[in-house]
Amino acid sequence: MTAQPLIAESFLETARARVDAALDKRIEAGGQASDRLQEAMRYSVLGGGKRIRPALCLAAARAVGQDSERALVPACTLELIHAYSLIHDDLPAMDNDELRRGRPTAHIAFDEATAILAGDALQTLAFGWLTEAPDLTDATRLAMVRELAAASGHRGMVGGQAIDLASVGKKLSIGELENMHRHKTGALIEASVRIGALTAESLSDQHFTALSDYARALGLAFQVQDDLLDIEGDTSVIGKPQGSDLARGKPTFPALLGNNGAREFLSQLLKTALDHLADFGPEADPLRAMADYVVARSH
Amino acid sequence: MTAQPLIAESFLETARARVDAALDKRIEAGGQASDRLQEAMRYSVLGGGKRIRPALCLAAARAVGQDSERALVPACTLELIHAYSLIHDDLPAMDNDELRRGRPTAHIAFDEATAILAGDALQTLAFGWLTEAPDLTDATRLAMVRELAAASGHRGMVGGQAIDLASVGKKLSIGELENMHRHKTGALIEASVRIGALTAESLSDQHFTALSDYARALGLAFQVQDDLLDIEGDTSVIGKPQGSDLARGKPTFPALLGNNGAREFLSQLLKTALDHLADFGPEADPLRAMADYVVARSH
Repeated sequence: MTAQPLIAESFLETARARVDAALDKRIEAGGQASDRLQEAMRYSVLGGGKRIRPALCLAAARAVGQDSERALVPACTLELIHAYSLIHDDLPAMDNDELRRGRPTAHIAFDEATAILAGDALQTLAFGWLTEAPDLTDATRLAMVRELAAASGHRGMVGGQAIDLASVGKKLSIGELENMHRHKTGALIEASVRIGALTAESLSDQHFTALSDYARALGLAFQVQDDLLDIEGDTSVIGKPQGSDLARGKPTFPALLGNNGAREFLSQLLKTALDHLADFGPEADPLRAMADYVVARSH
Repeated sequence: MTAQPLIAESFLETARARVDAALDKRIEAGGQASDRLQEAMRYSVLGGGKRIRPALCLAAARAVGQDSERALVPACTLELIHAYSLIHDDLPAMDNDELRRGRPTAHIAFDEATAILAGDALQTLAFGWLTEAPDLTDATRLAMVRELAAASGHRGMVGGQAIDLASVGKKLSIGELENMHRHKTGALIEASVRIGALTAESLSDQHFTALSDYARALGLAFQVQDDLLDIEGDTSVIGKPQGSDLARGKPTFPALLGNNGAREFLSQLLKTALDHLADFGPEADPLRAMADYVVARSH
């Protein structure tokens, strides 16, 4: 039932190339006195990145029988939100990270004020792009705006980041840790799949729910693997100092469950994610491949 | 043709009370671990403020013959964007202001990380609220999202803030100064009027353009008066240290035109704004009153 890693790599690679090209074309290279701002926006969005969220969006569109072309702009908006959140998370007042994807973070490469504004403007741009996403009805575009706002605001990603900041040095239960990650990274991953599914414009509630459930399990799996990589990964591959979460006293799944326990949890989550795709045929193979990739990735 | 200051004060006061009540009701008082974030959001939005943008939105809805009830939620979203921009502008890396509306700024009252996140979440909330604004079609809601995104992103408000940061200590021409302010404050003021006008759902292009032109002149007038208040105002009334722009070497209209020249420019802008309302009857009196208020305000 699960796809070969080869399919995953190839789907992700194609998705990444399409998303990178669309982002590069759509974020203008500046024009006037706010050149530096636009440079910082481009630097942050176009500086590599796995493009997992847009790829999930494209894969979900495929799963509901949609030509993924109409999902391309919505897919890009998920990357804009992700990029903005990374810029702000890296700021001195937050995680104070100087390295991201193996390059200086935005506030190091530019300056702090420009980094804050670039993050702000990338968030705005995501909503703006959704209003003009081609080949969709206004009702669908609006539903996508609603999904994106719900997933990225104080009840989603930003709320999760606030919980994270409040949790440093604290002992969390496994339930509290899950809750934090369901907000911090899970909500946007779930929105990626749901927004991809919305391209169908008419989809049974049952299928929409199944895809959401797939995404919820996958979002958590993503975080567990992230925690494991922080312990076991190689700095040059993961693009940030290995062990940095541990050094900050951030609560992690391996810290609570042990490394083997965390790996076992990861396998369970992968199985749960794939089980939710049981009603789908080969059209969901890219989603299956993405699940395999998320669990097996080395960075 | 111009309304009495009394009408302005009374319209603004009523608008402010309605907007304050709606904001207070709609921004939840928190629920779980991200309580502190939601507290910071409420602190920043509900801490007073003249509510000029929402009042302009309500006044524009009135001018196009709409019950202003359906403009109330859209009006509130303009205040959310304004509040988010103030939080971020006040940050140490930006203007480093400790006082806003006579109270400690968000990063002083809370902390810098919480202030950044509260600003981020307020921006998201604005787009989320537009998707659920009552009594409007999806097409209109989407058009409002488009207006708000265009006005507040890198080609609007945030772009203007970037130009502003790049201009400190520089000598700008009057055209460059106008361009900066058309982005930094003008775009959102114009969007306030345009979003209010969109509640009509069918409005002649001519009327829509006239209202936009009114707003463009008014937005600039607002800034000229702001600059004059920075020189002539009283710290306890304007809620921030008097002379702070001057002390920072920020370019201002009085610095370029002299105080009398700036006052003359202000009168011209008021006249231009009111002239653009010539085709409207008494239904535009609140807009006329708002123009008078903006020019005559003492804070």
